[in-house]
Amino acid sequence: MDNDGVAIVSGGLDSITMLYKLLFQDNRRPFVLSFDYGQRHVREISAAGEVCNLLGIEQRVFDFTDFGWITELSGSALVDDTVVVPEGHYAAETMKATVVPNRNMAMISIAAAFCISIKGDYVATAIHSGDHAIYPDCRPGFIQAMRSAIRIANEGFVHPNFHIYTPFILQSKTDIATLAQVLAVPIEKTWSCYNGREQHCGRCGTCVERQEALHNAGVPDLTPYEDSEFWKEQVAKL
Amino acid sequence: MDNDGVAIVSGGLDSITMLYKLLFQDNRRPFVLSFDYGQRHVREISAAGEVCNLLGIEQRVFDFTDFGWITELSGSALVDDTVVVPEGHYAAETMKATVVPNRNMAMISIAAAFCISIKGDYVATAIHSGDHAIYPDCRPGFIQAMRSAIRIANEGFVHPNFHIYTPFILQSKTDIATLAQVLAVPIEKTWSCYNGREQHCGRCGTCVERQEALHNAGVPDLTPYEDSEFWKEQVAKL
Repeated sequence: MDNDGVAIVSGGLDSITMLYKLLFQDNRRPFVLSFDYGQRHVREISAAGEVCNLLGIEQRVFDFTDFGWITELSGSALVDDTVVVPEGHYAAETMKATVVPNRNMAMISIAAAFCISIKGDYVATAIHSGDHAIYPDCRPGFIQAMRSAIRIANEGFVHPNFHIYTPFILQSKTDIATLAQVLAVPIEKTWSCYNGREQHCGRCGTCVERQEALHNAGVPDLTPYEDSEFWKEQVAKL
Repeated sequence: MDNDGVAIVSGGLDSITMLYKLLFQDNRRPFVLSFDYGQRHVREISAAGEVCNLLGIEQRVFDFTDFGWITELSGSALVDDTVVVPEGHYAAETMKATVVPNRNMAMISIAAAFCISIKGDYVATAIHSGDHAIYPDCRPGFIQAMRSAIRIANEGFVHPNFHIYTPFILQSKTDIATLAQVLAVPIEKTWSCYNGREQHCGRCGTCVERQEALHNAGVPDLTPYEDSEFWKEQVAKL
């Protein structure tokens, strides 16, 4: 069966759950695209690759490492190894240090180029409502603006039904965790941590968010963390 | 002096003339970014590099070669070596074979990420009115949609004056050729041809457009062409 669109899959809980949803709930056949942009936590890509292997589908890794040097001057902790990854709650102001300028626009633009080339009709991205506070390129207004720009940029070439598929944009991370369990996603094989060490650190914004969501969804969390208690203090602080 | 924005420079007549305009007419200090996207005419990038050397400014080449395999399935003659580069007038329907899906959106997205990282306020691109017929991602509506999407995607991070600088968007190639002469651009060092051979072929769309514009502007053309007569027949046909 030919691919009918492109799924941007980082290897985190959100994008892997989206991939399962596309395959097993939506009956779509996405091409899986992962970006190596020089992120500190590049091991998320191999996590995505392992899950694709389990599913028997192909993952293509886009060499986007030059995007790392282009954005390093922004001082983002995700691409500049000299900046400390902030700890604490995902929605805290300090998490702005993890913003990579224009990252989603660049990745969606490339995925759209691919989608148009294979005559697919969607680019799927797993952004969710918890991303909105810190990351402006995860908000509904941005997705609308992108869809419009892509359609204008590719008039006469793009599929008439082309859209950016964002199944989680109005959902919480807890909703995603719940769906992950329903779809039998191998949660412990997904990688969230912004630090790319052996185990999830348990203390960075995305580790805290992950543990909180799995807890709130009542989903057993088999992920090994360096620190599996820290998140509780952070949530209590709010 | 710090760079105050990013200029996308392919190495063709248009983008090199834009670079001279930015430096010598607009008093700006752009960072020069060239994209290696696996184009058949990759030698345009070294043409840009030679001119940057003349000017004593740095050129950074962004490794975007994976964009080639992503768009190869589109059958574009620019990235698929098995597709013949069409000959004839630049505005002819047959030139659609040279469209690379979403190329400008992807390149502008990356340039914008860089611009925001260095706190600049513009991304410059040399699209001109002659591009509008064939390339939807060179039309004014696209530039407006992109500017809007970039501002939304980077709210709180992007420069308040951020804009996509398109000095030639309502000008003709002949206007650009005239300006090139005024600014003493070393025209023969620029590279336009879609075929990446030793000399400009003289017969592809962009070679025809180049010769016509220089002729109409009354600018001596020192570029060696494999065929320097073909363009006249094509223009006579219109």
